Amino acid sequence: MTAEKLTDVRMFVAAPLSVGASVTCTPEQANYLVNVMRLAAGAEILVFNGRDGEWRARLAEVGKRRCSLECLALVRPQRAGPDVHYVFAPLKHARLDYMVQKATELGVAHLQPVLTRRTVATRVNLERMQANAIEAAEQCGVLRVPTVGEPLKLEALLANWDAGRRLIFGDEAAEVASPLAALAGMASGPLAVLIGPEGGFDPAERTLLLEKSYATAISLGPRVMRADTAAVAALALVNAALGDWR
Amino acid sequence: MTAEKLTDVRMFVAAPLSVGASVTCTPEQANYLVNVMRLAAGAEILVFNGRDGEWRARLAEVGKRRCSLECLALVRPQRAGPDVHYVFAPLKHARLDYMVQKATELGVAHLQPVLTRRTVATRVNLERMQANAIEAAEQCGVLRVPTVGEPLKLEALLANWDAGRRLIFGDEAAEVASPLAALAGMASGPLAVLIGPEGGFDPAERTLLLEKSYATAISLGPRVMRADTAAVAALALVNAALGDWR
Repeated sequence: MTAEKLTDVRMFVAAPLSVGASVTCTPEQANYLVNVMRLAAGAEILVFNGRDGEWRARLAEVGKRRCSLECLALVRPQRAGPDVHYVFAPLKHARLDYMVQKATELGVAHLQPVLTRRTVATRVNLERMQANAIEAAEQCGVLRVPTVGEPLKLEALLANWDAGRRLIFGDEAAEVASPLAALAGMASGPLAVLIGPEGGFDPAERTLLLEKSYATAISLGPRVMRADTAAVAALALVNAALGDWR
Repeated sequence: MTAEKLTDVRMFVAAPLSVGASVTCTPEQANYLVNVMRLAAGAEILVFNGRDGEWRARLAEVGKRRCSLECLALVRPQRAGPDVHYVFAPLKHARLDYMVQKATELGVAHLQPVLTRRTVATRVNLERMQANAIEAAEQCGVLRVPTVGEPLKLEALLANWDAGRRLIFGDEAAEVASPLAALAGMASGPLAVLIGPEGGFDPAERTLLLEKSYATAISLGPRVMRADTAAVAALALVNAALGDWR
């Protein structure tokens, strides 16, 4: 029998990756590989850990509830990806899952929930957010899994903001109607994109944001969009105008 | 008792709208207004039909399974919105629902399913697509509900294409890396955005597209995105560069 081919399974692991490194799967990972995907010893998958690039790895020591992986060869070296944070008022359930997956596909480095006066979902399941980010990275070939921050109130977030990181926020009443005109001429460098809750920012919050020298309001057109739509739209514009879609 | 205030219900209706016009609700609409939203005679809602603008209307003749509306006053006149068609390989279930909702929020005029060699979902429920478009328009204050076309094979679609409508398609191997550079200098006018299936276009399909004088390939960055993410990203870029986000 010939050696089994590389499967299309791609899995995030926590362990360091290098030639010959052994990776012990978690029980969930072992269950997925062995029972769901029905892989046997010798099958090969892709693994990544967000730091050491993407590797070909072979299943070894396969049991019903455990398995380990042997790291074979580097397939893609680690790349940094754009230095873009995504800051957002959490949404409920499925829409939050979706938004986190989309932001990961769009390559953000960090996911930062922010609580505003009109935020509806104030309890945020950070583990679920991280799991959604990992799943999106696995499915979309993303090498870097975004980190997830503890929720912060908007005032606290801004009080500790690094002024070297430009904050681009969606604002229905932005003075410049064209988002590309507002982004044009902005210097490259650390960025953040902020999308408020479905009800928008409170007037006092908006005033607070507009006072900051590091903040830029962008309009997202004449129609109302749901927050998860605005997320993808704003991140796409920022990637295209300032990020790695150039 | 004072007159009841305007509720935040916004509903699409098929009937013509004008001052004093009476609109008979469908049984589903009557059930929603009377039993779900628990509105009584005299309550006011917003209605639109995609042609005559948005109107204030008052519930009249309310029964358990029927109700009619009396059209009171124009709130927003009809606006045409951008002449952008969204052409897409259908996805399965929830992701298709989502994509249709998002395209509606982004203001497209027409939804056109296209069958490509790698399209997975070949059976398309057009009624469900139209219902999703209506729901998104209702929720997001959109005045124009996109029309929905019968699915067409890519070759048939292109064979009957109006060459006056520029076709912008997502292409991982686009020659120009920057989508904004590819869109810059393009004349305004009728547009279409085409996003292929999750597996991308077949090489022969890609060659066919690139041969067309009316087609422009745009890259959507160095990461793989799911088709529903690419939809929002591409439509946002087109709205911002060529459409009504200026």
